[in-house]
Amino acid sequence: MTIMPYQKGYDPMIRLNCDYLEGCHPSILHRLSETNLEQTPGYGTDHYCTEAADALRKAFSCPESAVHFLVGGTQANMTVISAALRPYEGVLCADTGHINVHETGAIESTGHKCLALPGKDGCITANQVAVATALQADDEHMVKPGMVYISMSTEVGTVYSLSQLKELYDTCKQHGLYLFIDGARVGYALAAPTGDVTAADIAKYCDVFTVGGTKMGALFGEAVIINNPELNVRFRYMIKQKGGMLAKGRLLGLQFSALMEDGLYFQLGRKAVDQAMRIRRALMDKGIPFLVDSPTNQLFPIFTDHQQERLEADFKLEFNGRVDETHVALRVCTSWCTPEEYVEKFIEAIKKL
Amino acid sequence: MTIMPYQKGYDPMIRLNCDYLEGCHPSILHRLSETNLEQTPGYGTDHYCTEAADALRKAFSCPESAVHFLVGGTQANMTVISAALRPYEGVLCADTGHINVHETGAIESTGHKCLALPGKDGCITANQVAVATALQADDEHMVKPGMVYISMSTEVGTVYSLSQLKELYDTCKQHGLYLFIDGARVGYALAAPTGDVTAADIAKYCDVFTVGGTKMGALFGEAVIINNPELNVRFRYMIKQKGGMLAKGRLLGLQFSALMEDGLYFQLGRKAVDQAMRIRRALMDKGIPFLVDSPTNQLFPIFTDHQQERLEADFKLEFNGRVDETHVALRVCTSWCTPEEYVEKFIEAIKKL
Amino acid sequence: MTIMPYQKGYDPMIRLNCDYLEGCHPSILHRLSETNLEQTPGYGTDHYCTEAADALRKAFSCPESAVHFLVGGTQANMTVISAALRPYEGVLCADTGHINVHETGAIESTGHKCLALPGKDGCITANQVAVATALQADDEHMVKPGMVYISMSTEVGTVYSLSQLKELYDTCKQHGLYLFIDGARVGYALAAPTGDVTAADIAKYCDVFTVGGTKMGALFGEAVIINNPELNVRFRYMIKQKGGMLAKGRLLGLQFSALMEDGLYFQLGRKAVDQAMRIRRALMDKGIPFLVDSPTNQLFPIFTDHQQERLEADFKLEFNGRVDETHVALRVCTSWCTPEEYVEKFIEAIKKL
Amino acid sequence: MTIMPYQKGYDPMIRLNCDYLEGCHPSILHRLSETNLEQTPGYGTDHYCTEAADALRKAFSCPESAVHFLVGGTQANMTVISAALRPYEGVLCADTGHINVHETGAIESTGHKCLALPGKDGCITANQVAVATALQADDEHMVKPGMVYISMSTEVGTVYSLSQLKELYDTCKQHGLYLFIDGARVGYALAAPTGDVTAADIAKYCDVFTVGGTKMGALFGEAVIINNPELNVRFRYMIKQKGGMLAKGRLLGLQFSALMEDGLYFQLGRKAVDQAMRIRRALMDKGIPFLVDSPTNQLFPIFTDHQQERLEADFKLEFNGRVDETHVALRVCTSWCTPEEYVEKFIEAIKKL
Repeated sequence: MTIMPYQKGYDPMIRLNCDYLEGCHPSILHRLSETNLEQTPGYGTDHYCTEAADALRKAFSCPESAVHFLVGGTQANMTVISAALRPYEGVLCADTGHINVHETGAIESTGHKCLALPGKDGCITANQVAVATALQADDEHMVKPGMVYISMSTEVGTVYSLSQLKELYDTCKQHGLYLFIDGARVGYALAAPTGDVTAADIAKYCDVFTVGGTKMGALFGEAVIINNPELNVRFRYMIKQKGGMLAKGRLLGLQFSALMEDGLYFQLGRKAVDQAMRIRRALMDKGIPFLVDSPTNQLFPIFTDHQQERLEADFKLEFNGRVDETHVALRVCTSWCTPEEYVEKFIEAIKKL
Repeated sequence: MTIMPYQKGYDPMIRLNCDYLEGCHPSILHRLSETNLEQTPGYGTDHYCTEAADALRKAFSCPESAVHFLVGGTQANMTVISAALRPYEGVLCADTGHINVHETGAIESTGHKCLALPGKDGCITANQVAVATALQADDEHMVKPGMVYISMSTEVGTVYSLSQLKELYDTCKQHGLYLFIDGARVGYALAAPTGDVTAADIAKYCDVFTVGGTKMGALFGEAVIINNPELNVRFRYMIKQKGGMLAKGRLLGLQFSALMEDGLYFQLGRKAVDQAMRIRRALMDKGIPFLVDSPTNQLFPIFTDHQQERLEADFKLEFNGRVDETHVALRVCTSWCTPEEYVEKFIEAIKKL
Repeated sequence: MTIMPYQKGYDPMIRLNCDYLEGCHPSILHRLSETNLEQTPGYGTDHYCTEAADALRKAFSCPESAVHFLVGGTQANMTVISAALRPYEGVLCADTGHINVHETGAIESTGHKCLALPGKDGCITANQVAVATALQADDEHMVKPGMVYISMSTEVGTVYSLSQLKELYDTCKQHGLYLFIDGARVGYALAAPTGDVTAADIAKYCDVFTVGGTKMGALFGEAVIINNPELNVRFRYMIKQKGGMLAKGRLLGLQFSALMEDGLYFQLGRKAVDQAMRIRRALMDKGIPFLVDSPTNQLFPIFTDHQQERLEADFKLEFNGRVDETHVALRVCTSWCTPEEYVEKFIEAIKKL
Repeated sequence: MTIMPYQKGYDPMIRLNCDYLEGCHPSILHRLSETNLEQTPGYGTDHYCTEAADALRKAFSCPESAVHFLVGGTQANMTVISAALRPYEGVLCADTGHINVHETGAIESTGHKCLALPGKDGCITANQVAVATALQADDEHMVKPGMVYISMSTEVGTVYSLSQLKELYDTCKQHGLYLFIDGARVGYALAAPTGDVTAADIAKYCDVFTVGGTKMGALFGEAVIINNPELNVRFRYMIKQKGGMLAKGRLLGLQFSALMEDGLYFQLGRKAVDQAMRIRRALMDKGIPFLVDSPTNQLFPIFTDHQQERLEADFKLEFNGRVDETHVALRVCTSWCTPEEYVEKFIEAIKKL
């Protein structure tokens, strides 16, 4: 199925600023239409959710894991983390971690501290985790680390290597910590040309992870996959209490079924990353530096103010931060449905800078 | 547009147990398809949300009110209530109130006590509010009432009359309380043949109310309409923190636009209530008593165990509670899309009891 | 040591309104003076706390239990309950329970719902617990009971019998609930002439209980005694986080050591209850009815408005509630240090009514 | 009144590790004894609390401020901060701030994020506050700064200058932030030889501050002084809910009255700081470097491991952190009751290093 650029057009601007600009992959709309008037039980107890859970377990090679479907990412993060921690425990994360910066304190609103560690390109190391845990061990005046949160891909588009992931997981197990992988963009992470982590590795080296739908072709939805049965005890109570239990839960099942069918999810990830890599090469050819050199669908080039001005005449990009008096970092995103035409136009514009 | 019973059929059982069994009104699917690949800004800042907000303000005659879109009802309730209350304040509600019974303590999870009052047919009175507030006034050892929560229609299908609503609102204003109307089923409430409250009254006699989508023909979604500007201060921060801010916010805007167009929302409500009233008459004709005599889409007849067994051979109804050793109360629900055929079959079955 | 009525006298009124009007038993002041300039480690890690913990374990015959010292009762309750419950769990209690009524929603402020059951004279039954637990079992839309909270003596001065206590404990164990006894007034409860529960029973038939200091002769302080080791895991983190860890923790150890020495705590309880029983007889002789007939240091007689007016000319009593248009219930309290003279004067006043 | 070293002696070690090792100033014990059997109303509504509040208002030149008495520091911090902030707001503080490091996440347990800024010698600047506030302004995906928390003296013994304090306060007012000064050691801060802030300045340049008792000669207790009436609205409800309302509230009033009488509080501060300055000089004479050069009762000298070993044979000091492979930073504390003899012995020991 060819995805064409949207025609009707309220906005002539080409948007490459984020990966949740459009609706959903057509196969999802098709399923929603096809099943629209079927009557199913609510709250994710329907057969579509069962099918989708099976498909996810298969795709991530974790036949024993529990699968739950939630509406959004912040919700999934706060539900998982507050289910996992005792009241005096906190969650170690990179200072750039989504939970630490962009969720309006949702984790703290459930009573838990984000224990931020200085990240390198959005990543934290097993050693940082070990040191932080040792520092706060058995001191009842300090928050006790109870979980490690990493994102894959990270908020700055980078990915953990397999050895980094294994080391983190080993360290977590040594120190009695849960490892949680936020996979809001896991489909893009798995497509990273420099990455060596597989879907099966994701499931193998953590206690719980999410598989993001919103940024990967669903209308909305995040699957929470729980490998460690300790974390699954009455998890549905947590989902309900935190507001994440969808009455018409099948909508989530239908979407994830569609995305998992014939590996569509992973294809969409690869396509977007291929596009991003072409843009990356064009930027490098032009000598544009990067804030972080990322191998996934999010790029963070540094432009002069003048370059920014020229690009933003035609393209909507995301401001990521001022680098110095005359330079800014912008985020350029491709996604599951970025039209080829947009990529080509953007590359052309870079060449002309 | 004729709604036909679902054909494909995984389940030969006719479900009349709740009002969120199916997908959505076809006009919503149509809009989603039509706009699917349009690029819009996220988080409800798009033009569809603006249009839907305008349509809601018009439909409820509250041109100055703020409108926000959230994914689900529990989420909407916890966001509104925790935004409104100071930490030591609680929310007065009927003991049968959804927040008190069926949200897994979501309100308490935000730190606030549900101050349950014994309801009569799911309703509380202005006098009860006045007495409770007086009892707990200025005693710093007790939770201070800060808000009154009522549901319209209530959890047992009843509605407040206009004079009851006005009195409640007046009492709230006298005592410095906010009045919050949970309108998860407001479309059914407004269609109650014995009711005298209009859409405009809903908006006029409270500080904040919701307009439910999930049970009224949307895939999901609740509109929060804030009449009292005090409650609107940085309300979007609250939505985000509580996990209710949808990345592709336009999905909510599109749905509410569709539902508000040409009064569709209210038509759907009337149709379902008409169907329920026909079922009610059939039950009464048969001499079946009711737990509560409700004028909306939810009925609570009391059957003998034998009657229950016979009905449940063909119909899925919801168990509401055992009345005595040989009788049970069941919930029978119609909805925005209950096929006529189902209603007729159920009435026939009643006659045969 | 004879306790004499306070002489200096800012207030000629005799106060019988509560049991925390004065400072502390002289033996406590003596110990504080004697050890004042000793240097000890902080936060309850000193030898006085160790001694006091041993003394409590001995007095309550629970050699394996863990003992912690907290400053106040609300603090102790919220710390114990929030340590025991998972986020979606609530605590069953009598509707008159201190946590439900007089702690400004402290329990809810930690995220947990008080699941109030209608009490009979301040007590709840094993059957009520069993029914409530069954009703809410395995329904993820409802708060799950995780603990039962009872007070001994209760907020209305009554006590549980040994068989009631055993039944409650058995029921809790059958349903996987913790049983928590709030012993803010346990010294008075154990002195009830109609009671058959011993100190050892208190420890034997619950998972955790408190031994109140504040109302029993200490300046302040509650001992938390944890019988069930599950509840003791990192409990000191909970104490610190909830603000209950006293820097100069030895102050609590010193006080409880003094109170436990030679059974002083229990003697003080008996003395106060003896006094209350004399007042009770005088009231009965006079034909004064009671709201609740309580066998401990708190009495709840019902007076006519006229009687109240006459008594309150000389005595400060506590208003407990209006009974009808011409009658009120008042609380009359004796305590560890009520002067004999006050009791006699009050009995005389009753006779003259 | 001469304070003599404690004689009875369980521990021959001289403790200079913290400032809450002993009981209280003898004048406090005297008052407690003198008033012990007086009957007073509870919860801080007695005349001793009124007197103490007046004395504090006078001592800090803030005749219009509200004064409340709480038991401990963590409790005071969490009560003040959770009373001040809306749910989506956080509190800016130094990364070394007590609330950020040593309160087991008490602030987060009330739902609020500590927004830690990198401190310089324990202090943060007005510019840091302005930048952080600007960065997070009007972005509903981020926690909004609502308050600035500073400590005076800081956790590393330093003090803000008057101009720094004024600037911070001005910046707070410009950005709609409350300024909160944690004065757990304000008596030592005001005695800093290099400091220019007066008691009146403390009250003048913030919205709320605490005056610590625990570390300044009281058995326990922190006064919360609220200059900004917005923060005082139903503050007593907050105290009760957070477990900080002492039943026998007069104990706090009596202690603060005693400490404020004839400027005792400030004398005790000066004496301790004088002692610390003599130790500081001895250390400097010996060429011992400092982690931070602090002008109050807490010193942070850096010793070789060998020096540490020798000192710790006779003195209990507090480990503050390893500086490099052969050096450690220790905390040396004087207090309101450090015997002269201890100071002399310690200085002698330094000389011998």
